[in-house]
Amino acid sequence: MPSQDFSSLQVLLHREIPVSAEMGITIVHASPDVVRLEAPLTPNINYNGTAFGGSIYTVAALSSWLLVSATLTAEGHEAESVIFQDGAIEYLHPANDRFEAESGWPSDETRSRFLRGLDRRGVARAQLAALVTCEGSVCASFAGRFVVRLGQRPVAIGESP
Amino acid sequence: MPSQDFSSLQVLLHREIPVSAEMGITIVHASPDVVRLEAPLTPNINYNGTAFGGSIYTVAALSSWLLVSATLTAEGHEAESVIFQDGAIEYLHPANDRFEAESGWPSDETRSRFLRGLDRRGVARAQLAALVTCEGSVCASFAGRFVVRLGQRPVAIGESP
Repeated sequence: MPSQDFSSLQVLLHREIPVSAEMGITIVHASPDVVRLEAPLTPNINYNGTAFGGSIYTVAALSSWLLVSATLTAEGHEAESVIFQDGAIEYLHPANDRFEAESGWPSDETRSRFLRGLDRRGVARAQLAALVTCEGSVCASFAGRFVVRLGQRPVAIGESP
Repeated sequence: MPSQDFSSLQVLLHREIPVSAEMGITIVHASPDVVRLEAPLTPNINYNGTAFGGSIYTVAALSSWLLVSATLTAEGHEAESVIFQDGAIEYLHPANDRFEAESGWPSDETRSRFLRGLDRRGVARAQLAALVTCEGSVCASFAGRFVVRLGQRPVAIGESP
């Protein structure tokens, strides 16, 4: 995805999830393979002067959600719904400055299974992981699952429904 | 804790975790046994017109953090640090309106073990759970762990350190 696409994706993110704008979350990179988001320490600071755990979780979860969206777009799919099913995060190290979440598919097989499920049944579960880093250190490890249901594809004239 | 205490706790919450003010999170009830927080759908809305999963997680996590704080205060403890170690959430039902998170100690034994650990070693882990509800339905189930380290108690004149 060329870099000039990020600004429209950025607008989409802030419109679809308004709280992401309040948190100052920006898109560093977005492709069907990897999504990287960044957030400033302020306004995501906590009582210890480090990044608040709820904000760290949110940035990680959004990077995974955008990865699902980017993958669907790249495959020409339009989702009827993308449901966030569950999320888990382990906080490993405090983030003392801007922090970044990078989400990727755990393996090619995971991604292929997700896409095969969509093709066959129109619904599939994406299991994704994200790492949150700050100044080169891993601050948190996130895992989340999303259930994607495709919209009914329009039937072209002459095509069997 | 009498209801007139909530406003100062509210100020503390919004000062310690500024993003909680942006999310419009308010304290409904706070005691060493149970903490209930509430958040409006806007600005926590997502692309489906329901509450965003990151906000739901944040409200649940903060209710657990405040429960730890309320318990420490009730026991006369002053924490040197309260570290959020990990969190996990399962989203069960969309929240279409204001939503509420209620955190409690899973059992008296869990709470007693936490307090015994603090008394003996000055450090202990609190394992807490929270339920998020909206219009009477359970929307999400949260579990989180916090590591509390007590500050060094001042030594009174004539007392052995």
